[in-house]
Amino acid sequence: MYSFKNDYSEGAHPRILSSLIESNLEQHEGYGEDKYTKEAIELLKKRMDNQHVDVHLLSGGTQANLTALSAFLRPHEAVIAANTGHILVHETGAIEATGHKIISIDTDDGKLTSMKVKMALDYHTDEHMVKPKLVYISNPTEIGSIYTKSELESLSSFCRENKLILYVDGARLGSALCSEENDMTLPELASLVDAFYIGGTKNGALIGEALVICSDCLKEDFRFHLKQKGALLAKGRLLGIQFLELFKDELYFDLARHANNMAKLLKEGLCSEGYKFLTHSPSNQIFPILPNKLIEKLEESYAFYIWQKIDKDNSAIRLVTSWATDEKDVLGLIESVKNFR
Amino acid sequence: MYSFKNDYSEGAHPRILSSLIESNLEQHEGYGEDKYTKEAIELLKKRMDNQHVDVHLLSGGTQANLTALSAFLRPHEAVIAANTGHILVHETGAIEATGHKIISIDTDDGKLTSMKVKMALDYHTDEHMVKPKLVYISNPTEIGSIYTKSELESLSSFCRENKLILYVDGARLGSALCSEENDMTLPELASLVDAFYIGGTKNGALIGEALVICSDCLKEDFRFHLKQKGALLAKGRLLGIQFLELFKDELYFDLARHANNMAKLLKEGLCSEGYKFLTHSPSNQIFPILPNKLIEKLEESYAFYIWQKIDKDNSAIRLVTSWATDEKDVLGLIESVKNFR
Amino acid sequence: MYSFKNDYSEGAHPRILSSLIESNLEQHEGYGEDKYTKEAIELLKKRMDNQHVDVHLLSGGTQANLTALSAFLRPHEAVIAANTGHILVHETGAIEATGHKIISIDTDDGKLTSMKVKMALDYHTDEHMVKPKLVYISNPTEIGSIYTKSELESLSSFCRENKLILYVDGARLGSALCSEENDMTLPELASLVDAFYIGGTKNGALIGEALVICSDCLKEDFRFHLKQKGALLAKGRLLGIQFLELFKDELYFDLARHANNMAKLLKEGLCSEGYKFLTHSPSNQIFPILPNKLIEKLEESYAFYIWQKIDKDNSAIRLVTSWATDEKDVLGLIESVKNFR
Amino acid sequence: MYSFKNDYSEGAHPRILSSLIESNLEQHEGYGEDKYTKEAIELLKKRMDNQHVDVHLLSGGTQANLTALSAFLRPHEAVIAANTGHILVHETGAIEATGHKIISIDTDDGKLTSMKVKMALDYHTDEHMVKPKLVYISNPTEIGSIYTKSELESLSSFCRENKLILYVDGARLGSALCSEENDMTLPELASLVDAFYIGGTKNGALIGEALVICSDCLKEDFRFHLKQKGALLAKGRLLGIQFLELFKDELYFDLARHANNMAKLLKEGLCSEGYKFLTHSPSNQIFPILPNKLIEKLEESYAFYIWQKIDKDNSAIRLVTSWATDEKDVLGLIESVKNFR
Repeated sequence: MYSFKNDYSEGAHPRILSSLIESNLEQHEGYGEDKYTKEAIELLKKRMDNQHVDVHLLSGGTQANLTALSAFLRPHEAVIAANTGHILVHETGAIEATGHKIISIDTDDGKLTSMKVKMALDYHTDEHMVKPKLVYISNPTEIGSIYTKSELESLSSFCRENKLILYVDGARLGSALCSEENDMTLPELASLVDAFYIGGTKNGALIGEALVICSDCLKEDFRFHLKQKGALLAKGRLLGIQFLELFKDELYFDLARHANNMAKLLKEGLCSEGYKFLTHSPSNQIFPILPNKLIEKLEESYAFYIWQKIDKDNSAIRLVTSWATDEKDVLGLIESVKNFR
Repeated sequence: MYSFKNDYSEGAHPRILSSLIESNLEQHEGYGEDKYTKEAIELLKKRMDNQHVDVHLLSGGTQANLTALSAFLRPHEAVIAANTGHILVHETGAIEATGHKIISIDTDDGKLTSMKVKMALDYHTDEHMVKPKLVYISNPTEIGSIYTKSELESLSSFCRENKLILYVDGARLGSALCSEENDMTLPELASLVDAFYIGGTKNGALIGEALVICSDCLKEDFRFHLKQKGALLAKGRLLGIQFLELFKDELYFDLARHANNMAKLLKEGLCSEGYKFLTHSPSNQIFPILPNKLIEKLEESYAFYIWQKIDKDNSAIRLVTSWATDEKDVLGLIESVKNFR
Repeated sequence: MYSFKNDYSEGAHPRILSSLIESNLEQHEGYGEDKYTKEAIELLKKRMDNQHVDVHLLSGGTQANLTALSAFLRPHEAVIAANTGHILVHETGAIEATGHKIISIDTDDGKLTSMKVKMALDYHTDEHMVKPKLVYISNPTEIGSIYTKSELESLSSFCRENKLILYVDGARLGSALCSEENDMTLPELASLVDAFYIGGTKNGALIGEALVICSDCLKEDFRFHLKQKGALLAKGRLLGIQFLELFKDELYFDLARHANNMAKLLKEGLCSEGYKFLTHSPSNQIFPILPNKLIEKLEESYAFYIWQKIDKDNSAIRLVTSWATDEKDVLGLIESVKNFR
Repeated sequence: MYSFKNDYSEGAHPRILSSLIESNLEQHEGYGEDKYTKEAIELLKKRMDNQHVDVHLLSGGTQANLTALSAFLRPHEAVIAANTGHILVHETGAIEATGHKIISIDTDDGKLTSMKVKMALDYHTDEHMVKPKLVYISNPTEIGSIYTKSELESLSSFCRENKLILYVDGARLGSALCSEENDMTLPELASLVDAFYIGGTKNGALIGEALVICSDCLKEDFRFHLKQKGALLAKGRLLGIQFLELFKDELYFDLARHANNMAKLLKEGLCSEGYKFLTHSPSNQIFPILPNKLIEKLEESYAFYIWQKIDKDNSAIRLVTSWATDEKDVLGLIESVKNFR
């Protein structure tokens, strides 16, 4: 049984483990004040071509989202998110648990536009309603689509005009930035948003997300929030060493590219058999629509999620590839599809 | 410069890293549903001689405390803790951030007794005050003392009579259980309290604490709370593999014993030079009172915290030993003390 | 300018003010432990034909909702509400501020059914999502519709089978119970739900809502929650005296009936001129659809809210009547409508 | 039985009830946008000789405290309060329930000084601890003492230098400002602090506290917080009318002066019999130390709280006077004391 269920089925890229072993018995300061974390942060700033951002390393996406959003918002301020937004449904009310409402916006493609955000603003007119303050987007989105540079520029301008904080959940940011359809660099992204995180867990790290705070007004006292939310690891080096390894050369991007290539290979194989997809997805998650009978057959050898019923005979499934996906297994799945009938 | 600042200066015990490497490319379920985590939990239950407890693996102590306490308490219920309690001062208000007051109780030795807890109960008489509901203790305490079995039995009885939840912060539980003065087993501990955690980070793990929920009424839906507080790691295997390695033989206890032995060696060395200690500490933290001039000299070669000013010429310092402490450095420090004058 | 904007434009029914004056200089216990509050509570129990409920008097609807819901729910538990639910949009995120997500359910008529609630349950399948636990309905709804006895029975059965708490926001409960279309008594209501409140502010009181807790498991320590949320008035007598006056005879119901009658008069007047309504509303709020030109003319003499644009020439407005609405002004408005053209 | 238990045993000053009756059937805007509330706010600004403050009317002290403090603070920021502070013990953890720790400072007289506040600052050194941000004082304090102008000036300077918010709980502010020992005017108070509230409930109103926000940076969006915390009354006129009546002439101060005079009369009577007091109290609460036998005798005719055991034969009691206290009953109590033996 080979799994295409997600991009965190394996451990870490071997270079990361080697790096952990090499430094293992060195003594370092705790709580992210070790030299590896400091070096990783400097390196990330260089990669973003930006000395003015603050970078903090955290363990996971939900933790990054809840720590950042609760630090950025006053009690009456709310978040705007697409109906597919991870924080809206799949984080067990983590944002609401810190006291903030999330306003859901219907989308077809998982992406917010300034027009859609404006509708939420127009609806919230006075103190009897929450005050929309932070726009949460994911890139890639939870259904695999990505933002183009001009889409993000337009959203960014709108947010700045309307004093909204623009935040990007980058759990799979590597995949977005390395997508064939992407036209945005990491420095450009950092210049357009107020905060975002660079996902490590889903791109070769054991754990780890790098939260980047771009806007000065959001930076103050952030380490207090890390500690208060249980996000400050005693052995912070564990995070620092990983990001240092991922970004000291092209490793982070190479891993993301591999994941994307494997997804593309899958997509092309299924396409050539005439199958359609639920969403346009140029990243490492694809959502092919397949006959239920074929799905049943595939389930004998492959693990994946059934995403959505389409009609009585067909369903969309989700296939996720990763830095660790083996081309042989991709080809095997395609072969199984070809042999179907 | 050798550090006695804490017990998380180094990485992990080498066997843990080996174990991570061995399993690295295997595919496993996410979020703690992998086989290693399941095995680790079964193993821990066996070590506790108790099939009825629930075990959850988390990343750190603050995270374990805030997730457990907020899951266990209703909004009007409060925590009782010793004035030295870690949650009271050194977790950035993490418990209060989940909405609960902590009632501070003055102690000399960092330990709560039923008499002290009763005083807090007596003071909180009606609905204009919070309702004390959970007794938080640390074993060993934050100043190195440990609870005897009869002390814990007495506190446990009192809590059960008064419908109070008894919770133990075991960040350094290994050190307490392996202390020469300890007379309590892990199964006995588990039978006396409602919940506690077995600290891994400070005893050889990279990260990881095993939260044990003993009382049935506290178990329901706990995984929802893990997820909501950002404590459910996508690659939960990282925690499972570590606890499996630590508990599959005597490793966890051997590491704690080593730390205690190193502390004892330090203590005896300082004692034989005539120095006294701030607290009676049979665990891996000691608090010798030294002349400021000696402290200055030691600071040239050793890192440690100055804990408290005693008088104009003397201060107490904190020396922490760990699984990784090198005997050679302990002897070196003692030598420096001997050569002082 | 006569206002049909809401049912809290005037002060209190004169009998309430007289009663306040009569008792004014008597000394009484504070915080709702005075004899008037006690008598009012006994009286309300009698009116509900139920000695087992607990009754607490609070100042307003948002306060009642947030105090009750936060007391009833654990941190990971969520509320299910119709998309029109007052707590969802018009209470500034008060429920989320206590840490709980509200799951919105689309409705046409503002009413939840067991089928709709089931859809929300089916969607929330594991610990990565909140756990739906409390069903919030309003009777009458925010758009004037009311629940029939059989509708509430069906919803109640479903909730009990699924261990869901059923809560009714009764800000305008008097109007629902006195509606011509109502077939449910107050005792029946109390037997079908877990908690609800009987609104005073919108039915003749200065301030005041009577929260009724029917289920034993929700009763414990509720006064702690009242105090913690700032809902325990030092001069609790202010609430007790009002509810005593409203319920010592038929006053509460007479006032609601008057409001309903005035709404019916309005409705019939507009109907006879051929106008339609946005919703079927047998309570004291009606939503006629009128030509914008007529609306403009009415605005010269009457205050009301424009509720929704219908097309380029027509809009729905909201007209609210109350215990204090003067028949003369109702007739005046109808006359204006008749004279339009 | 005559009660000296508190200053909220009676209803409202008769002029307030008359004013409610006069305006009763007028139609007004809801939620504090009525003309009475607006006039009351303008009047209060005039009384403070300050057009730049914002004023909001709320129902009670706990509500005012929790709404203000949670609006003013970020999640990691904490409150500093005297050990006698009302929010610390007698508000059921209302502040903690909004997520903020209260740091308790030991005092003899219930008053904070810059030196005491500095100690709290010095102790909180980094992100592992909360960040002290708001200094909460009460004037008069919970044990009857009052702040002199120079004391408040000194505290105010210290807070401004250290970027701390200075907040005054004025539940009994009238009594402080009308104390014989007071040397501070209302405008002076408003110029020295960042926010405070003027208590109405304990000085002749049915309910009502006027929260004054002096610092511009604390003003933004405050009405959202009022609504979110359930503090925005639909019939806000109830609060406006009362404050208008209390401040349109000297009524508020006359009532406070009467309360103080009655306390002074009591104090002198007990003094002349040779009794001592637990605290120096120039306001409307006094704490005489009396023989337990005398206390038992007094309890036959008077209600009051036994505050503290002094020794086996003596206890301190609390006697509270109010705007409604009858001189005859004060003299009666003194007579009873004289006749004791």
